[in-house]
Amino acid sequence: MNDARNGIGRSETEAYLAHAMELADEARRVIRAARARGVRIERKPDGTFVTSADIEVETRLRALVLARYPDHGVIGEEQAPSNPGADFQWIMDPIDGTEDFAFDIPTFGCILALHYRGQPLVGVIDHPALDLRVNAAYGLGAYRNGERVRPAWPATPAGAERVMLSARANFTRYMDDGHLFDAVARAFPNHRIYRTCFAHTCVAIGAADAGVEYHDRPWDLAASRLLVEEAGGQFALVRDLALPGVGRILSAVFGRPALVERLAALLR
Amino acid sequence: MNDARNGIGRSETEAYLAHAMELADEARRVIRAARARGVRIERKPDGTFVTSADIEVETRLRALVLARYPDHGVIGEEQAPSNPGADFQWIMDPIDGTEDFAFDIPTFGCILALHYRGQPLVGVIDHPALDLRVNAAYGLGAYRNGERVRPAWPATPAGAERVMLSARANFTRYMDDGHLFDAVARAFPNHRIYRTCFAHTCVAIGAADAGVEYHDRPWDLAASRLLVEEAGGQFALVRDLALPGVGRILSAVFGRPALVERLAALLR
Repeated sequence: MNDARNGIGRSETEAYLAHAMELADEARRVIRAARARGVRIERKPDGTFVTSADIEVETRLRALVLARYPDHGVIGEEQAPSNPGADFQWIMDPIDGTEDFAFDIPTFGCILALHYRGQPLVGVIDHPALDLRVNAAYGLGAYRNGERVRPAWPATPAGAERVMLSARANFTRYMDDGHLFDAVARAFPNHRIYRTCFAHTCVAIGAADAGVEYHDRPWDLAASRLLVEEAGGQFALVRDLALPGVGRILSAVFGRPALVERLAALLR
Repeated sequence: MNDARNGIGRSETEAYLAHAMELADEARRVIRAARARGVRIERKPDGTFVTSADIEVETRLRALVLARYPDHGVIGEEQAPSNPGADFQWIMDPIDGTEDFAFDIPTFGCILALHYRGQPLVGVIDHPALDLRVNAAYGLGAYRNGERVRPAWPATPAGAERVMLSARANFTRYMDDGHLFDAVARAFPNHRIYRTCFAHTCVAIGAADAGVEYHDRPWDLAASRLLVEEAGGQFALVRDLALPGVGRILSAVFGRPALVERLAALLR
């Protein structure tokens, strides 16, 4: 298989995974300390939230990555990229679901991934308030709190499939694709909408049949493909756009293969 | 004010609340033990889930209520009513969000309420997996893990209001009111859909601006009116139907008063 990742040895991949796990540990410490002492919340110019904790986590993780791998790149939600031309890119959303974090809803999470030439090598989603972490490395499987994930995805009656959706706001944020939300919501009425990476975690561990993430930034999806694929599921990128003044926005469906095809057909 | 509840003394209300808290403690013990040893999951004839833990919790709580208050009624999701003509009715959903409980999604909860002549006197929602409990008693305020709840409901820009919705499946389960889901989802695109009482908890503590619960059974809403009203919010019942072969189904909106009126107008 012509995949650049196959040129990277197992022990090297394991070392990157170990580093990602240390980053997630550190993010959890910073986030828990911030929650304990109270968080300063602001709305960004685009209306989304940022807190003092988001900045603190990203600053800390960037420093750790660049101290260990000075020639690797770092792409994060809150700060400008470092080494943008590097083959290895650490991609992070220090707190995904900042709005929920700000309101003390525990499904927020820290997303971390290492990509090599555009392909995911390591992926971690950590939920500090739920004591829940999923992680995967290319060829090494997916894990939930240290236990191998092998989702059963039990047979679900038609119409009862458990599908995680983006909110309608995602479908109208950059352009009006609201009709696509309506079509998916109609076709899969047993949906949940969490607005955080917790939805991706649920798919990776088999607690949901499939997920739809619509018009989000690369860091929102950076860990999800590997988590789902290493758990035995399928991941399909259904849109990849470059928007002036915004940057790259991605849309994807992932989970149980038969469902992924049906959802992708609705969105393409 | 012509409210039958005003005829009940404060110390009597406090005793009922204390009993409800003991019931919630017991439910938490049974649920945690069941999770630890594994749960048997079945689909009911209507397609919804029931587990061995649902039955075990309801059986245990019924016995505790009737041992303490033999002339009170008990209405629960899983078993036939006891003393249906009594003025005092304990209403319970032993595990609300059984499907999520079965898949280990931690937002499920135990709903408990005591109604007096149809009016809520005590309400508790307990989330064993989140170590989170909200409780309220008539005239005595709402509490979250023992601390008084006074939601700030900060000013939210138009279009960004945080609204908890029922899934579209709720709007089409008994009759096709899907157009109402579509209208609400369009008007309030920053929605979340949890499919459990965790949505009501979020409204009561001010983590969401408002909630919509559509076509659910009385036990699903039994605690919510009191929790929201005692926290300073508003609760509006927008539909109250008796369906042959099903029973009473209710629809309600609740939360920040200005939003409740706008949501109710969309649904009526």
